[in-house]
Formats: sequence, structure tokens, C-alpha cells
Amino acid sequence: MTLLAKKTDKKQPPPAATSPTVGQYLFDCLKAEGVTEIFGIPGDYNFSLLDTLEQYEGIQFVNGRNELGAGYASDGYGRIRGLSALITTFGVGEMSACNTIAGANSEYVPLIHIVGAPKSTDQQAHKLMHHTLLNGDFDVFRQMYTHLCAYTAVLTPENAEQEIPTALRIAKRTRKPVYLMAAIDLVTKPIVKRTVPEEKQAATSQPALEAAVQHIRRLLNGTSSVVLLSDILALRCGLRDYVQQLALRLNVPAASLLLGKSGFDERHPNYIGVYGGAFGSGQVRTIVESADCIIAVGMVWTDINSANETAKLDRLRLIDIQPEFVRVGETMYERVMATDLIAALNAIGWRQSAALPQVAFPYDAITGEPDQSIRAASYYPRFQRMLKDKDIVVVETGTFAYGMSQVRLPAGADYICQQGWQSIGYATPAAFGACIAAPNRRVLLFTGDGSLQLTVQEISTMLDNRCRPILFILNNSGYTIEKYLNVYTSDQQYNQIPSWRYTLLAEAFGGQAFTARVRTNRELDDAIAAAEQAQMSRLCIIELIVSDPIDAPDYLIRLRKHLEEQRRLMG
Amino acid sequence: MTLLAKKTDKKQPPPAATSPTVGQYLFDCLKAEGVTEIFGIPGDYNFSLLDTLEQYEGIQFVNGRNELGAGYASDGYGRIRGLSALITTFGVGEMSACNTIAGANSEYVPLIHIVGAPKSTDQQAHKLMHHTLLNGDFDVFRQMYTHLCAYTAVLTPENAEQEIPTALRIAKRTRKPVYLMAAIDLVTKPIVKRTVPEEKQAATSQPALEAAVQHIRRLLNGTSSVVLLSDILALRCGLRDYVQQLALRLNVPAASLLLGKSGFDERHPNYIGVYGGAFGSGQVRTIVESADCIIAVGMVWTDINSANETAKLDRLRLIDIQPEFVRVGETMYERVMATDLIAALNAIGWRQSAALPQVAFPYDAITGEPDQSIRAASYYPRFQRMLKDKDIVVVETGTFAYGMSQVRLPAGADYICQQGWQSIGYATPAAFGACIAAPNRRVLLFTGDGSLQLTVQEISTMLDNRCRPILFILNNSGYTIEKYLNVYTSDQQYNQIPSWRYTLLAEAFGGQAFTARVRTNRELDDAIAAAEQAQMSRLCIIELIVSDPIDAPDYLIRLRKHLEEQRRLMG
Repeated sequence: MTLLAKKTDKKQPPPAATSPTVGQYLFDCLKAEGVTEIFGIPGDYNFSLLDTLEQYEGIQFVNGRNELGAGYASDGYGRIRGLSALITTFGVGEMSACNTIAGANSEYVPLIHIVGAPKSTDQQAHKLMHHTLLNGDFDVFRQMYTHLCAYTAVLTPENAEQEIPTALRIAKRTRKPVYLMAAIDLVTKPIVKRTVPEEKQAATSQPALEAAVQHIRRLLNGTSSVVLLSDILALRCGLRDYVQQLALRLNVPAASLLLGKSGFDERHPNYIGVYGGAFGSGQVRTIVESADCIIAVGMVWTDINSANETAKLDRLRLIDIQPEFVRVGETMYERVMATDLIAALNAIGWRQSAALPQVAFPYDAITGEPDQSIRAASYYPRFQRMLKDKDIVVVETGTFAYGMSQVRLPAGADYICQQGWQSIGYATPAAFGACIAAPNRRVLLFTGDGSLQLTVQEISTMLDNRCRPILFILNNSGYTIEKYLNVYTSDQQYNQIPSWRYTLLAEAFGGQAFTARVRTNRELDDAIAAAEQAQMSRLCIIELIVSDPIDAPDYLIRLRKHLEEQRRLMG
Repeated sequence: MTLLAKKTDKKQPPPAATSPTVGQYLFDCLKAEGVTEIFGIPGDYNFSLLDTLEQYEGIQFVNGRNELGAGYASDGYGRIRGLSALITTFGVGEMSACNTIAGANSEYVPLIHIVGAPKSTDQQAHKLMHHTLLNGDFDVFRQMYTHLCAYTAVLTPENAEQEIPTALRIAKRTRKPVYLMAAIDLVTKPIVKRTVPEEKQAATSQPALEAAVQHIRRLLNGTSSVVLLSDILALRCGLRDYVQQLALRLNVPAASLLLGKSGFDERHPNYIGVYGGAFGSGQVRTIVESADCIIAVGMVWTDINSANETAKLDRLRLIDIQPEFVRVGETMYERVMATDLIAALNAIGWRQSAALPQVAFPYDAITGEPDQSIRAASYYPRFQRMLKDKDIVVVETGTFAYGMSQVRLPAGADYICQQGWQSIGYATPAAFGACIAAPNRRVLLFTGDGSLQLTVQEISTMLDNRCRPILFILNNSGYTIEKYLNVYTSDQQYNQIPSWRYTLLAEAFGGQAFTARVRTNRELDDAIAAAEQAQMSRLCIIELIVSDPIDAPDYLIRLRKHLEEQRRLMG
């Protein structure tokens, strides 16, 4: 009877005890999106967030060594899992994470940045609290973050039920970071339940889609060679399967751009490689640039993707498919979702008659004698050979980013590399984030000595969390990439860095690792074989000591030549 | 004849060759302010700045391991030298320095943040360059920095001669950071010479000064006990000598606030200690709170300075001397420079008749038996004893910041501690900056294990620059400060950190150091004695391993009790 009475008593609001707190509700929403770990650093304004999380079922807090590292880790996690979250403290914490949030913005990673703030009453009284600019302004950091985030909100019990889902929806749709701030005392207050209107989902306009498909059909009918380009937004928006199926249906070769690497499976029969203008594979360049028509999916035309504008795409021959619109030649069709458009193109009836081109990949063949010093030409093929299906390959900005872009990945591999934002130091924490995101997959990190030094402490976090990535550290005595990019001076002192004993780091961080220092191809082969065994039980560090500090992959050598040529032309 | 002809030919502009480039002119201006080192990290948009600097006489570039570290180092340098500069690269570099610039803003450190930006033509064309948000916006990061800086400017050859001196003048006057951005191609262009009008200096209004002095005279004539408080702006604006002379003239006791520690010489006869409300010395509290009148110089009334508002200053009895104004009771006198006002007060004729109080300092007496475990009560007196005149004492936020605030400094010592912004990780790089700023002075760092892990790589930078500070690392297994400040939960997992082997770090960083791990008072005494010898030739690391991880200085224990009491009162 009592139960029944309760059930029919619909006019009563639910008792307050059933309302989750602001913090609990936030974590409920994140859990519903598949987030099972949140990264961050404690601070006295986020205690209530972390206390709530420590007692919360289904999401673990993962402590980083500093905010930049924790932020990069959550970025790496988000690239694997689709969404991630970071908790920092007001002022000092969030200001150390600006770089990582800017990078997530630049490279379309939906990262939920949650900031614990001073007590609401202290804010209202404009008190000069620690971790502030000591001017009574508690909104200044949120204002800064409006430049880096697709959405910002200051949470209260009254608005949480509206603001949190809104922020998550915007993050997912725009693939951009969002910022949520919560005062320490409000996190533990129950949310005020209210009826929140459902937002309309972005949807395709049928007339626009039909007009676009007609236009594309006309274009294709006059062409005999089509090529497909897959880029960063195809990767981020989960279009891999759609694009791959389209390539099969149309029977066209498919290339990735640098920012989109691994968005198209590199063992797919239609895959021809990464298109890198004058710096990448000549064969890929010829196929792409001689095509009558190019279908690009999720393309962002940056300096890196265009290989310093040596890549040439004729806009009139371009079908530019973006997540929510398509541009055919110079004609824009808005409100056309990429998934709907690609589905329509699968049924468009056009199919390339020529057989797919046979391409060789730059690092298919092992080179270098066993006793020779390791060089780019010899270690990249060895990396390609050692990669296994479903590996997560994390690559640092710098020489490795250029060389690894030309390595052919195995099936199902993910490739994490900040090719747009290019913040050195990113890759080590991102590799940690990938380990947490996918504990059953192998994670490989390729980083340089200069870059590693920025965020080295996250190796400690890996050890502390029993992660077992294989870390390749290229010891070439400084910022080699910067030496390559500066064609005006040489032997810059500022590109020198201290010589570390990289293989001692794990021990200094209180952990244990398999370590090897290799100078020859044989030593590299042996170290890889040993690490593949050791990696079952512990983290592995392989230091690659090159005899020639300015040895570099062909891609970078061609880039350098281009810069020198440009300098000559400019007098 | 030729020479003469040239001299009289006044209408001709000077030949272009005599104009310095934008970069050279910037460094000329910084050198004129006494800057002899600039910190930073190279990146491909600041090559022209660094190339100019590498060939420039009189300023050295000092490479940090990452931007946060280089930024903190320049902050520490600026606290010793009065002005400092930091060079970062566009986007990725500057976004990693937000924390340090915000901290410099919060704590009144005039830091010149110089950002190398993409080519001006690429900016004008809104190209999607790397290190940007890939949206064609090159002004977004400068806009963010307007929130953290007293001034921002985008330098060109046309405006450099106006903008650079303006920015430096504003930085010096406001004691705040400023931001200067320069496109990579414009740095090497000669500046366009122009007649720049001289700015008027801030100056005292004589009538306002006279009115203020009359008011103060009336106030003093009715009082028998006056106390002087010295705070952060007295320290930053170089008022130490003025304030000390004033204390002597008036024959009044003088205390510092936490943010102003070392702004009043702690061996000065009038000095009584740091005023920390209910948490600091009871004797100091009684003297300050029972005074009829308080003269505060450069005070900023923050939560930390007010010891969570347990410090009580009656505004009606307060003479609040700020750099450019004074408030007597509730009456404000604007345009009164502190130096002019203090000079007038020296001649005001009032003098306290009572003898100065005899005070004991909390850590004057050595405690603890040689074989006992080290505790706060035993190691702080030992630190006080080991300090020497003119030492630079750098203290990390956390338990050390509270304990060291009560240590009496030797004569001429500088004390560097972020008591306002409180960003953990600050102190290690700041100690490096202090070493560079004052190579002939002894630098001591007191940091905790948790904080050290955020910015540990700057130990490598110290080794690389042959710095020889003594680093005390308090190993208490986690963020002890956070455990103290959270009165709602206990044994938080998130306050745990990995156990590092701190004494192995120097070796892992490729350097050599004197190291010691101490657990007892005797071991600490021995290690200090040995380090004082070893410090002549190398960096020293002393790890303090406490047996009780929540041992803490009395100041912090009283703070904790206050927080618990507050919690009880709030139910």
C-alpha cells in the first residue's frame, strides 16, 4: 500500500535526498559518456570534487605529476576513448593547463576541464584569496578560457542539470574542450531538479543533401581518376569505417594527411600512404596531384598538412566533406552531415574502372648493416617491422613526427601525434593517457631527448600506475628539429640541452624498467626483441644514441631544402 | 669637411644602417634596465629573437627545460634583480607560461614576456599555421594575456621605439608583467626612428602630501604605542631602507606580513617577527593588535596575510601607505608617493617613548636529541642556525612556507616564496633563477617532495649552469599541506605521490651532486656541515625523511585547528 501510494503521488517533487550533488551529477554525466578515469592534480579548492570522486563508483581519479602532464594525459586518453576529463584547482592549476587545453582546441579533442574554485561566499565578497590575482576577480581565468573552449560555465546547484549536459553536448559536437568551474562548497550541494528542454540534434537538410549529391554525381561522371583524402576530422568524428567503405565502393586510392594519420587503416587495400606534398612519398604525390577529382573527408588545411604549401589541391576539383557541411568546388552545402553524405555517395553508382595503383611505402625495406650506426634510414624500417596490430603509437613533435608519418601502421593501430599544435613535451604524458585509456593494448612512445625533458616526470606516473609502454628516446644531443627549421644561423647554443642518463630515470623515480642503450642496428634489433619480452612485465626504455646528431628522415631533409630554397628566393 | 657637412645636414634622417633592429632595440632597452640574462625555450617562431640575442653583447640567453620552469626562473630572477625577461614561442610556448605570468601578476613581479610569432605575412593571410588554434586567429593568445599583464603590444619596426619603452615603464611602475609579441620576420628589421614624447613620471601632489602628513600628525599625537607592518609592495618597490629608517626614527617595533617577509631586515633592532594572526607568534600578535596605531607599508590584505582572517587590523587606527597613495583611517590621499611620504614622516617629530619590546623568535633554540627523528620542531631551528648573511632563501608553497615564515633570517637575506599565488612547483625553478641573478650569493631551496615533482627538471638546468644551491627536500610521502587543509576527509588517495629516489636525480640528469638522506637530528647536523663545504664546488641535495608524515610546524597545526573549529561552527 505504501509503495503504491508513493507511486501515484506524482505531484510531489522527489525528496531532496534522491538528488545527486553537483559533483555526483557531473560524474554521472561523464560516466554515461564512457569516461572511467579522470586525470588531474589536487589542490585545496578542488578537495570536494576529489573527495566526491574518491567515493564515487565507476570513475577513478588518476593523479599526474603536474597539470600540464595530467592535461596531456587526458588529451591522449580522449583521442583513444572519444572524451576525457581533467580536474585542476583554481588559478595555479588551471593556468598550468592552458597549453593542453589550447592543444585540444587546435586538434579537436573534446576534453572536459573541471576547475575547483574558492568558496562561493568568498567569491561574492571579492576577498583576496590565494591562487587569485589578489584583485577580487574570480572570473578572470574563466574569461581567458573562453578563448580556448567551445563553452564555459560556472556551476551551481540551480544550473548544473542544464549546464553540464549542455557543455558535454557542445564538446562532443564541436570536438573541442569545454570548461566547467565549481565553487568548493557548491560541489557537495544537491542539484535542483528541473525540466530541461531537450536540445535538437544537428541533422541533415534533405534538400541540401540531394543538391550536393547531384552536384557530386555531375562532377564524378566527367572524371576517370579520383582519390580520397582522409584527415583529422574524419579521425576525430569516428568516420573511419564510413570512409573506408566509400573507398572500396568507389574503388579509389586513399591517402591520409599528416594530421589525419591512422584515420584510414594503413593496411586497407585502397590505402596508398600519407600525402606530404614535396616532402613525402613522390608516388603518393603523383597519384593525388594528377587525380581529376579529390574527395577529402574532415580536412583542415594547415601549414603542416600542406607541407609548407608544397601540396597543391585544386579547389575546383575538390569535394570537401566536413562533419556538418560539404563544399563541392566553390559551392557550399550547409546542414549536410558527413555520415549521411557518405552513405549517399556509397549509393551514387560511380566506380573507378582502373585498378588500384601498386605503391611502395618508404620504410618497407630493412636497411643498414648490423654493425653500422643507427640512422633514420635504418631505424624507421625497424620500427615499422616491430609494430603489431592494434598498437597505439604515440609520436612526439620533432624529427620523429616527420619520420614516423611515413611508417606504415599495422591494422587497427591508433596514431597519436600533435601535428597541428605541435607542443613539444606532449607525447610522454599522452602515452601515459593512452595506457590508461586502453590497458590491454600495447603503447609505444617515440620521443626525442629535448622533448622528453619538458615532461619527464610522467614516466614516474606510468611506473606508479604499472603501465608498460615501450619508450624510444632519440638521443641526438638537442633540439634537432629546430636546427633543421632555422636556415638563417647554425650551431645555435640555444638548441643545446643537458645530456641526461635516460636509462637511470626509472630508478630515480623509484621504479624499475627494462632499459637499453643502442648505437648500432644490431643493438637496436636486440633491444627491440628483448623489450618485446620485457614489456609483458614492465616499462621499457630504449635510448637510441645516434652518431650523427643531425641525421634525420628524408621528409625532414626535403623540408630543410625547401626552406633553404625559399630563403634564397627571398634574397 | 665631410664630417662637418654631415653634422650640419640636419634635415636628413639618419642612415638606416644606424638603426638597431627591433630585436636589438628590445635588448638595448632591457640591458639599460640591468637585465643581463633572459630565460626561455627555443621554438621555430622565436629563432630570430634568439639568433639576435646569441650575437648580442651583454645579455645571455638561459635555456630552461620547459616554459613553466623558465618562467618561474625568470620570476625568481626578477625578485632579486628588479626586472626580468622570458622568451617563449607562439602558442605552445606562451600557453605553458600562463601560470608563471599569472603568478608574477599576483605577486607584483615585473616580468617582460616576449613571444616570437609567425611571419607577419602569414598572420595577415590568416593561414592555419602550426602552434595556432588552426582558425586563422593570431591575436587570441595576446588577448588572453591582457588578463594577466599590465600591458600588451604587438611590435613592429614602426612602433617599437614607442611600445617597448612604454611597456617597460608600465612594468616598473605597476610591478606587473607585460607582454610583447614580435613576428619572426620583423625582429630583424631596423626600427623606424621617431620622436617619442617623454612620459610624465608619477609624482607626488604637494597639497595631498601635506594634508596626509597633517592627518597623520594628529593621529600620532594621541597615541603612545605604534607598530609598523611591512608587506609585499614595500619589498617589491624597494622601500626597505626607507621603512627601516622610519622604524628607527619613530622608535617603533616593526613586523612583516607573510607576503612581505624579508622586506624588513630580520636582524634590524626594531624587528619583532612575522605577524600571522592566530597562527603565528603570540607575542607579535599581542604587540600588533594592542597598538594604538599601525603604520602599514605596501600591504595587500590577502587570506594568507590575514591568517584566514584571524589577524585583526582596525582600519580606523591604520595608516595604509601604498606606493602611490596613502589611506589614513578612512581618508584617502591620492598622488602621494610612498618615498615622499616616508621622508616626511621621518621629520614629523613624533617618537615613541617606551623602549622596544624584547621578543623571542619561535625557532631561536635548538631542540631535539641527536638520535631522535627529525621533526619540524627540530629542523626549523637548525635551518635558522645555518643561514648566513645575504643568503637567498627560496621556499616552496606548502608546509615549508608556513614553517620557514617563522624562521628568523640573517642580515641582508632575501626570501623568495609565493605566498599569494602559491603555485606548487614554483620554488625549484625560482631557486635556479636566483642562482643566475646572484651568482656570488648562496642560494638555499626548501621544497617538499610533492612540489618538487612538478618541476624537477630544473635541477638539470642548475647542474647544466654549474649552479651550487643547497636543496632541502622534505620527503613526507605526499601533499602533506593538502592533508592539513582538508578537514572533511582523511587519508585521501589523491594526496599520495610516487616515492622517488631524490638523491639519484642529479646522476640521472647527467650531473654530480653532494647528496645526503637524513632521518635524525644528528644526521641533519652532519649533512648541513658537509653540504656547507661541498657547496663550494657543487650542488647539494639533502633529503629529509620524516618518520611522521603529518608532522608539521606549529603555524600549520594552529591553522588546521582553526579550520576544524570553523567546520564545527558551520555544522
